[in-house]
Amino acid sequence: MRSALDFLLRDWLAVEQLTFRPRFADHSHDTFAAILDTCERIAEDVFAPANRTVDIDEPRLVDGKVVLPDAAYVTARAYVESGMLAASHEASVGGMRLPYVIEMAANAMFAKAGVGVGGGSLLTVGNANLLMAHGTAEQRRVFAHNELSGRWFGTMCLSEPQAGSGLGDITTRALAEPGGADDPFGRRYRLHGNKMWISNGDHELTENIIHLVLAKVQDQAGRLPAGVKGISLFIVPKWLVDEQGKLTGERNDVVVAGLNHKLGYRGLPNTLLNFGEGRHVVRGQPGAVGYLVGRVGEGLKYMFHFMNEARIVIGLGAAALGYAGYEASLRYARERRQGRALTPDGKAAGSGAVCIIEHPDVRRMLLAQKAYSEGALALSLYCARLVDEINTASPEVGAEARCLLELLTPIAKSWPSEWCLEANSLAIQVHGGCGYTRDFPVEQYWRDNRLNMIHEGTHGIQALDLLGRKVRQDGGAAMRLFASRVDATVEAAAADPALQKYGTTLRGALRSLGRAIDGAWANGDHLEALSNATPFLQAFGHVVVAWLWLDLGLVAGRFPESARALGMRQAMRYFYEFELPKIAAWLGPVENCSRTCCAMQNEWFDA
Amino acid sequence: MRSALDFLLRDWLAVEQLTFRPRFADHSHDTFAAILDTCERIAEDVFAPANRTVDIDEPRLVDGKVVLPDAAYVTARAYVESGMLAASHEASVGGMRLPYVIEMAANAMFAKAGVGVGGGSLLTVGNANLLMAHGTAEQRRVFAHNELSGRWFGTMCLSEPQAGSGLGDITTRALAEPGGADDPFGRRYRLHGNKMWISNGDHELTENIIHLVLAKVQDQAGRLPAGVKGISLFIVPKWLVDEQGKLTGERNDVVVAGLNHKLGYRGLPNTLLNFGEGRHVVRGQPGAVGYLVGRVGEGLKYMFHFMNEARIVIGLGAAALGYAGYEASLRYARERRQGRALTPDGKAAGSGAVCIIEHPDVRRMLLAQKAYSEGALALSLYCARLVDEINTASPEVGAEARCLLELLTPIAKSWPSEWCLEANSLAIQVHGGCGYTRDFPVEQYWRDNRLNMIHEGTHGIQALDLLGRKVRQDGGAAMRLFASRVDATVEAAAADPALQKYGTTLRGALRSLGRAIDGAWANGDHLEALSNATPFLQAFGHVVVAWLWLDLGLVAGRFPESARALGMRQAMRYFYEFELPKIAAWLGPVENCSRTCCAMQNEWFDA
Repeated sequence: MRSALDFLLRDWLAVEQLTFRPRFADHSHDTFAAILDTCERIAEDVFAPANRTVDIDEPRLVDGKVVLPDAAYVTARAYVESGMLAASHEASVGGMRLPYVIEMAANAMFAKAGVGVGGGSLLTVGNANLLMAHGTAEQRRVFAHNELSGRWFGTMCLSEPQAGSGLGDITTRALAEPGGADDPFGRRYRLHGNKMWISNGDHELTENIIHLVLAKVQDQAGRLPAGVKGISLFIVPKWLVDEQGKLTGERNDVVVAGLNHKLGYRGLPNTLLNFGEGRHVVRGQPGAVGYLVGRVGEGLKYMFHFMNEARIVIGLGAAALGYAGYEASLRYARERRQGRALTPDGKAAGSGAVCIIEHPDVRRMLLAQKAYSEGALALSLYCARLVDEINTASPEVGAEARCLLELLTPIAKSWPSEWCLEANSLAIQVHGGCGYTRDFPVEQYWRDNRLNMIHEGTHGIQALDLLGRKVRQDGGAAMRLFASRVDATVEAAAADPALQKYGTTLRGALRSLGRAIDGAWANGDHLEALSNATPFLQAFGHVVVAWLWLDLGLVAGRFPESARALGMRQAMRYFYEFELPKIAAWLGPVENCSRTCCAMQNEWFDA
Repeated sequence: MRSALDFLLRDWLAVEQLTFRPRFADHSHDTFAAILDTCERIAEDVFAPANRTVDIDEPRLVDGKVVLPDAAYVTARAYVESGMLAASHEASVGGMRLPYVIEMAANAMFAKAGVGVGGGSLLTVGNANLLMAHGTAEQRRVFAHNELSGRWFGTMCLSEPQAGSGLGDITTRALAEPGGADDPFGRRYRLHGNKMWISNGDHELTENIIHLVLAKVQDQAGRLPAGVKGISLFIVPKWLVDEQGKLTGERNDVVVAGLNHKLGYRGLPNTLLNFGEGRHVVRGQPGAVGYLVGRVGEGLKYMFHFMNEARIVIGLGAAALGYAGYEASLRYARERRQGRALTPDGKAAGSGAVCIIEHPDVRRMLLAQKAYSEGALALSLYCARLVDEINTASPEVGAEARCLLELLTPIAKSWPSEWCLEANSLAIQVHGGCGYTRDFPVEQYWRDNRLNMIHEGTHGIQALDLLGRKVRQDGGAAMRLFASRVDATVEAAAADPALQKYGTTLRGALRSLGRAIDGAWANGDHLEALSNATPFLQAFGHVVVAWLWLDLGLVAGRFPESARALGMRQAMRYFYEFELPKIAAWLGPVENCSRTCCAMQNEWFDA
């Protein structure tokens, strides 16, 4: 994977140019490389050996405590010591002012080695970053800083048993505490309710856990405001702390009520948490103590700070799992002997079995995995690079990057989740029967990866976001920007005889997307347009990745002697010949506003 | 599922007409229904509750014995008592002369309830049927009859650690035993070697286990014949028996050397078996005692008797798992409330959350599952019906059925394996986070189903069989026959205004297949043609299932008031709008003889 990352970062995304910006002035090619080297070593030496252990020895709830294997502690500690929790921040909080794209590249190596180990850094970093952006000075100093140092870990508490995709229906209630207006950590409330699917919701990895909790502020009459506009955000520490960040010894009333027993991703305990059910009485009052973040009713807005970041990270994790399977099956295909080579005349060649990588169908499966997982990696890092543009480029460039990133976020989340899962299935297939056993790693990658189409907004939710909002907002500004980027690549490809035809194909694909959008919204009917949002999402994803592959093919052309570059060109060809043509099948029902799915009646599903 | 089976058997395949044939004269609509009722009850009452148990409490090897949970014993016994092991046979061996299509319909219900429980009937039935077809009178009387009664279970020992897809490279050797020529069970040999991936290879479910083992007869100089033509077939009982079928107390030298720890299908122990390594010395001689079946060198031919049957059963099992997920997610979607209904103007309708089946994207996922799993079920039963034609129709009709079945067998195996796995993934997706936990059954279906693209000939092997052999043999006779069947459906559809356009589409799809075959073989170059065999297999499968759906749509037209028929018409529409268009993407590289995969160089896979 490192070879792919180096190509993407150095040759394609030109990350060294970031070092000319003041924010990254202390960095150089060498510091980036050193950080990636360190992370790669920790990932391979510490994370990789723990990956199967945490799958087998999954979290248990014993006497109200979450019991994890030693491997969970060792990897969490190793991640903290890598310094990556604060990577993007200032030295004053232990950070190294690292570009986001480098941080993501490093995280890809960790995720490839063990996606469910390391203590759930996504949650802690996301929590801290949210507080750094929207918290008060005190909230930042005490809560965020102690998370960035790894002293405490964080969670994000959104879903409830009755409300996941539909967050407007959450019922966790927050009651303003009398006399809580002048708490140094912000307006103090008492929270009551249940939160479901909370990753790392309880554990003993750190001395404290900082929950960020969505809840609704109850009015005098005991009513909760309706919908997502009624949602506020609260800091709820497991143990209360004083202004110096010292634990006061008071246990807050947030309790793990159960663990979810998952198909994969088992390294990370996934919990049901009860807030304020009275298990612990804090300072003589009922409810879990929580401090308001920002303003009442704006909780979901702040949470999107985290969710947008998380969606890129989820996609990156899916890409990394895809890559893990690709590497494993490549290794296997190079060693495993079976069958004879296919010859033009159909006769078996030679008397000995060949390595299965000699079989065209095995090469197809490896090439598909490469096209999926390197394409997904490129997509994730491209998006991460846009984050750096937003943060450190000129306002104009930054605004454009933001506009493009908003359009691409549903793709960055959904495309790797879907196609790197398929890559993992192909990795199993290359292994044959061996791939179906737990003696080989690929079945775990496949199980782990299945989560990614679900958490942080399901496929269906991403599709509604894309076709319902992103392609239409500001009169289609983001689509026009995207089209201009695609055009730039197509024009560059026109100068390369080997790539020209792919450029033409890509331009046609882009037009197909446009027609589908127009067709879907022809009558301005949301139901009609959005009934087929998911096939649109799939097609859009394939066009985005085809664009990236052509762009990668252009760069690869600069290195005609390099095996990596030749392989990338071949993966690009694979994508244009075998993958991109699928968009016609997806876009047909979108463009024609097919009512087949939405007209299907409940009672006709006669099973 | 029963409602789908009844529609397929009664209204589509007209199984009652079979009762006019002498072989099935004792049967009637009522006897078929009674048998299906009984099997459905056993499946639901005994198999279904055991399904998760055998997944959790997987087989263990303790002191050389395979330990299984009670549920494995209970379900195996229940299956034996159902009488289904001998279903297709004469009353004299405990059978009921049941049509194969009814037997398969019953097995679909068992597989839906618990695909890995019931003692691995596929193996025992396949073993016994092979012996009934190719064994001597004594082999049938003692070995096959005791398997059909369920007194002993059977296995099929094909693969070895170094040879799975490439059976020509097996090295298990058989040495003719001096004085073994006149054994009542056939020429006696001693076998030495290792067999891998042997389902039900050892257990204590029955007092004896009858292995059917592929091996090569060693010549005087100790050499083994090369390739598949050197393969012979042997009966190797775990315990030796006398001519009355009584155990002699002599333990044969076949020993379980290990269990494979699988991703799914855990109810069925999967073993590595060692033959003749000397653990047990039998009658003072080294080697496992084995009795030759049929003639030396014809073992693989006999084995195909089993494999062709097994491939239909594997497809049926995949379809049943698809159906299991469909039913579970349908149930969930009808109960789970989340979000608001989509409305034409984009505003949230009403104040309460709706059942998620109201969301068009959820209906899409349910409709896709229905189209996949009922399509796969139709395909499996259609093939089973062809087996009945082969066995009981006139010689001409039978020969045609055989020709068509040979063509369809790779599809019957591969299509359900691929698309009902996708159905199971959609079943997880409908469940959201719940689907990713072991508190719901769908993740297990998905894990179980992943095996089906691997065992009994991988996807790639099926593809080579289809494009390399089946579509070309006898000058394309099977393809012409297939085309004529498709044409008959298209012509019938032309009379129905609602179906006419689908007929036209189907005819176009059939022509695309023809062009792809011509393109692939234009130069008669096997390497060129077969490099893209798998996408051809996928496209062929979609065309076959589109044909079946149109045929089902025709029948559904006879019941305009029936919810089931309306649902089937809608699933047909879904298949034509959302699925069939995919074939263009698969066939492009086939028709153009793309060399992209086979030209990809080993060293370009730089990971």
